[in-house]
Amino acid sequence: MARYREFASPPGTLPAGPRNAITDVPGVTVGHRTLQGDGLNTGVTAIIPQPGNLFRKPLTAAVEVINGFGKSAGLVQIAELGLLETPILLSNTFAVGTCVNALIRRAIVESPEIGRGASTVNAVACECNDGVLSDIQRMAVREEDALAALADAKAEVAEGSVGAGTGMISFGFKGGIGTASRQACGGTVGALVLSNFGRAGDLVLPDGRRPDPRLPPAPEKGSIIVVLAMDVPVDQRQLQRICRRAGAGIARLGAFWGHGSGDIVLGFTTANRIPRDSGDTIAIHRLNDARIDEAFRAACEATEEAILNALCTATPVDGFGGETRPLLSDWLKEKTE
Amino acid sequence: MARYREFASPPGTLPAGPRNAITDVPGVTVGHRTLQGDGLNTGVTAIIPQPGNLFRKPLTAAVEVINGFGKSAGLVQIAELGLLETPILLSNTFAVGTCVNALIRRAIVESPEIGRGASTVNAVACECNDGVLSDIQRMAVREEDALAALADAKAEVAEGSVGAGTGMISFGFKGGIGTASRQACGGTVGALVLSNFGRAGDLVLPDGRRPDPRLPPAPEKGSIIVVLAMDVPVDQRQLQRICRRAGAGIARLGAFWGHGSGDIVLGFTTANRIPRDSGDTIAIHRLNDARIDEAFRAACEATEEAILNALCTATPVDGFGGETRPLLSDWLKEKTE
Amino acid sequence: MARYREFASPPGTLPAGPRNAITDVPGVTVGHRTLQGDGLNTGVTAIIPQPGNLFRKPLTAAVEVINGFGKSAGLVQIAELGLLETPILLSNTFAVGTCVNALIRRAIVESPEIGRGASTVNAVACECNDGVLSDIQRMAVREEDALAALADAKAEVAEGSVGAGTGMISFGFKGGIGTASRQACGGTVGALVLSNFGRAGDLVLPDGRRPDPRLPPAPEKGSIIVVLAMDVPVDQRQLQRICRRAGAGIARLGAFWGHGSGDIVLGFTTANRIPRDSGDTIAIHRLNDARIDEAFRAACEATEEAILNALCTATPVDGFGGETRPLLSDWLKEKTE
Amino acid sequence: MARYREFASPPGTLPAGPRNAITDVPGVTVGHRTLQGDGLNTGVTAIIPQPGNLFRKPLTAAVEVINGFGKSAGLVQIAELGLLETPILLSNTFAVGTCVNALIRRAIVESPEIGRGASTVNAVACECNDGVLSDIQRMAVREEDALAALADAKAEVAEGSVGAGTGMISFGFKGGIGTASRQACGGTVGALVLSNFGRAGDLVLPDGRRPDPRLPPAPEKGSIIVVLAMDVPVDQRQLQRICRRAGAGIARLGAFWGHGSGDIVLGFTTANRIPRDSGDTIAIHRLNDARIDEAFRAACEATEEAILNALCTATPVDGFGGETRPLLSDWLKEKTE
Repeated sequence: MARYREFASPPGTLPAGPRNAITDVPGVTVGHRTLQGDGLNTGVTAIIPQPGNLFRKPLTAAVEVINGFGKSAGLVQIAELGLLETPILLSNTFAVGTCVNALIRRAIVESPEIGRGASTVNAVACECNDGVLSDIQRMAVREEDALAALADAKAEVAEGSVGAGTGMISFGFKGGIGTASRQACGGTVGALVLSNFGRAGDLVLPDGRRPDPRLPPAPEKGSIIVVLAMDVPVDQRQLQRICRRAGAGIARLGAFWGHGSGDIVLGFTTANRIPRDSGDTIAIHRLNDARIDEAFRAACEATEEAILNALCTATPVDGFGGETRPLLSDWLKEKTE
Repeated sequence: MARYREFASPPGTLPAGPRNAITDVPGVTVGHRTLQGDGLNTGVTAIIPQPGNLFRKPLTAAVEVINGFGKSAGLVQIAELGLLETPILLSNTFAVGTCVNALIRRAIVESPEIGRGASTVNAVACECNDGVLSDIQRMAVREEDALAALADAKAEVAEGSVGAGTGMISFGFKGGIGTASRQACGGTVGALVLSNFGRAGDLVLPDGRRPDPRLPPAPEKGSIIVVLAMDVPVDQRQLQRICRRAGAGIARLGAFWGHGSGDIVLGFTTANRIPRDSGDTIAIHRLNDARIDEAFRAACEATEEAILNALCTATPVDGFGGETRPLLSDWLKEKTE
Repeated sequence: MARYREFASPPGTLPAGPRNAITDVPGVTVGHRTLQGDGLNTGVTAIIPQPGNLFRKPLTAAVEVINGFGKSAGLVQIAELGLLETPILLSNTFAVGTCVNALIRRAIVESPEIGRGASTVNAVACECNDGVLSDIQRMAVREEDALAALADAKAEVAEGSVGAGTGMISFGFKGGIGTASRQACGGTVGALVLSNFGRAGDLVLPDGRRPDPRLPPAPEKGSIIVVLAMDVPVDQRQLQRICRRAGAGIARLGAFWGHGSGDIVLGFTTANRIPRDSGDTIAIHRLNDARIDEAFRAACEATEEAILNALCTATPVDGFGGETRPLLSDWLKEKTE
Repeated sequence: MARYREFASPPGTLPAGPRNAITDVPGVTVGHRTLQGDGLNTGVTAIIPQPGNLFRKPLTAAVEVINGFGKSAGLVQIAELGLLETPILLSNTFAVGTCVNALIRRAIVESPEIGRGASTVNAVACECNDGVLSDIQRMAVREEDALAALADAKAEVAEGSVGAGTGMISFGFKGGIGTASRQACGGTVGALVLSNFGRAGDLVLPDGRRPDPRLPPAPEKGSIIVVLAMDVPVDQRQLQRICRRAGAGIARLGAFWGHGSGDIVLGFTTANRIPRDSGDTIAIHRLNDARIDEAFRAACEATEEAILNALCTATPVDGFGGETRPLLSDWLKEKTE
């Protein structure tokens, strides 16, 4: 399962972190639960932004809705308050309710004051539609699957046809989970994508090549979720501006944020964590805006390479109703031989 | 269970519809499922915007987030596409996932193409926190309860401590479900509220009186969901502007959209329904903007009176941990004796 | 020229500052230039947020567009960057371009690096339409008038039919400039309004009385600009949320943010000033969100009282084409005799 | 002055209109006024969206602020009302006030009811900073220059170092005015850009080549204004979504919407014009959302090619303080020899 930079020059100019993964941001871990067989190719991917109790000590977070054809949960409150209180779960479109329930139950165990002395908890679950390769109507993801993805979280990130990425398709090729990172502003910006977007024939590689899976034309029904993690000290306004630049990374690969594609970016910083029981005012450090272009560039490049990694590392799946999708890695191998 | 205008002059100047309810908009129905006992005071309220298959023939809809401290589902897609594809379910904060699952399963039964040949469905569920009067950590609402609320839908609207309103509190008084309507722009604008907002001591009646439940001061942790229905022909831009004016109705009662209050307005029009399989272009009628002030006024007045109706019709509940809240109807009776 | 609290109990519960004016926020000053005669009743009002060079050391600022039927300048950049780089000028709708030119020329004199080594400057000018009482087509405001208003700035704020307020109308009464303040969150929140909104017959006083100027009904064509100043340490996200609450103050007086009314709120804090030449990161203090309700309440109450002060202190003007408007102070005097 | 497709394959797959210009949309005309000499390289470009009285019969319009580091006028009202009432003027940053004044005076002549019986008029002027190549502090653009650009409007569009484009820079090369069009959805989508954005070294051509002007690195201080015209029948919600896709065209050329770059898109459709004195409701036709991807693609491709045309057609200017910038056309000629 070679990653994109083993085939070609990676996009952009900034250096990647040691793992070239979202987990280059210290404390971030990722886990998966994959469900396959009987027409299913689905699963759950969990991003745990930091160890410890997230409800009592939330992270600064922001959301950028590039195209809101999506059913994610928890975004409205993040947009208003700028806080992330739970891990982020990714799954298929019809598993969002179950993921939310699992996150709530887990948060109550960790923080029994939730919904009693304290306010309720804002569970965050994002989704793409894997209905071509998986029998999405079965609503097969259970709360145990969500918990299993959380329990699997570690610094090493499995990519491709795994977890929520199991049934994904991008640009007509098999899609899935991908990750990458960039060093910027004295820290690291990492991206993890659930890549399910892009019309067949539209993909453009950073070197200008245009891999075509030679499929019959069809309207785009995909989506992409981008999770951006960073340890750069930013406030929510800055973080949302950084999240917006993930859209440039998506566009550079040939997409135009199609009507039917729920293109959503969720970002958090591990700097400036804000205890719920803090005093009247809170001291925070934030990046000088005059330095923010490097973080913009990092978000753009990391997103672009994370998508390429998702496509390169995807393995074939035996899809629902016999559907399959070709692999970008096969196309790249053929072209480099 | 007298409504507000049996105690005092109603807010505003526009005439109400025959039922003074959201169901004055032809085709709109409302149902409830109430769960009480064993520390529970919760439930589900369903608004069915029109009979028939909503996925295949969605309604024009809009969202206005006044204060986004809320966990509702489905809002992001409505904001982007301006379409309502399912009934609207209201419940407690931790029942949103289960309501979403129920709506998805029901939609698949009605439209088996969902997630297969067609796109997925955007389920809409909104919430308030009833954790003071109900044991919200039990997550007691099941999918059957959501379906029971839908099955109960009819033109006559039960108000007060019923359905999702069972455990609600407003301005320190017992809150709940309320509804009202106004005739405007040649049609009807109806409001239904799940009223759980307002700090004790802040309530101001339309005549300037200030009912005080004489409770110890506490930070506001409530919320309000306003559903606005209308048959006035408007487009999504106009509809969102109308939804925004519900916030004026809330403010006139003495609230200022508190930090911890998820104040969310969801509006739809029954005019201009758009079949999913329509042609290249669609002919619609929309209100002349020069006439829209009457719809603004109607949204403001109907929201204000719906809240007052929720408070007036609320009946006492035996709350979780022995909590109870006084009734505004008792205060009003005492003052008018 | 009695202010509202000399006639009746002021709105709300929080204490006012010593001047009950926006200039209770230390360092804020306000000046006016009034143009009258020959069919003109117009002018310029200047709010200088702090002494010294604002371009080199901008203030944290935010904008809330309640209803965007308005032609103000500079708002887009404030929304993106959260910075205020010039004084704020208020005038009539057709004087915005001239006010912008005056601010740019003045900024270049103070900071000759503008548009050369440094970026350009974002001039902020807001407006209401005084076309009923003044010959707005004359475009009579000159750059010298803008500079005269700036030169007049002081801590004592003239209210009523003065500066930009000279030709304003609210709720059918003579409107104008008003100000008020509230002590909150360990500091002061001050409001200054250019009050030109509200349909005749809609005004509701805090005590429930409804002053009616007995004019023929007409569609609302007014607007209101609210400038909120504070020394409370907040970031831009918090500041925008506080600005939004000015809308509640407007609504409580009986308005619903009419279609034709450009209702715009511009807020700044004098805490956390950010030098343009700062280092890689900046340390700021910001309010704990759990304390922000008091600032919300202050913004709502100060806005409401500032509007009432504008109406109470307005003096008669001999309007263009013989138009005049009654005074709220006459109505109040009559009712209290 | 060869355009981009004379050097290389144009971006995208959709066919261009006959002129490959914004004026392929019937009725759209463009004019310029260029000011050069004495350290000046500036001017005004006018886009007249349709002949006739725009105030009395406005067009449906929308705004997308990609990065709001910009001082344009008139955007707030377009975002709220979705109407374009004047021609669009482009100029340098410090000429916005003067352009607004010129547009207001011109509109009053055409519609003497403005600011009297009717409301005021919303003048639209957008800008980029030409301070490197022109002495922007001189504020040299006069109202006569704005009127001269309007008077020059015709279907044939001059590109490059002309009008507002005279002093522009993009990716370190000489920038300016460019235009292009695409046939889509049964009509035409045309783009005109004022191209002043992009850091030297970041430009990527559609074929993957990376022209580098070999300049010392510097932070981006540019901007880009994109005007999108179309005759496709869309409503404001759809139009804003189409405008957003211009951002994908910008990103594909290697930009990431830099912090200091005011990247703003202004779109209008010539379909569905709405007379100010229309009745209670208005009948409009709008595109089926299921067909909108072609309009998205057209907006993206037309924007990308318009930028390339601006760079290819730019001619050298003798800049303020001796500054000059190389030409992309020279780079392209050298590479193709």
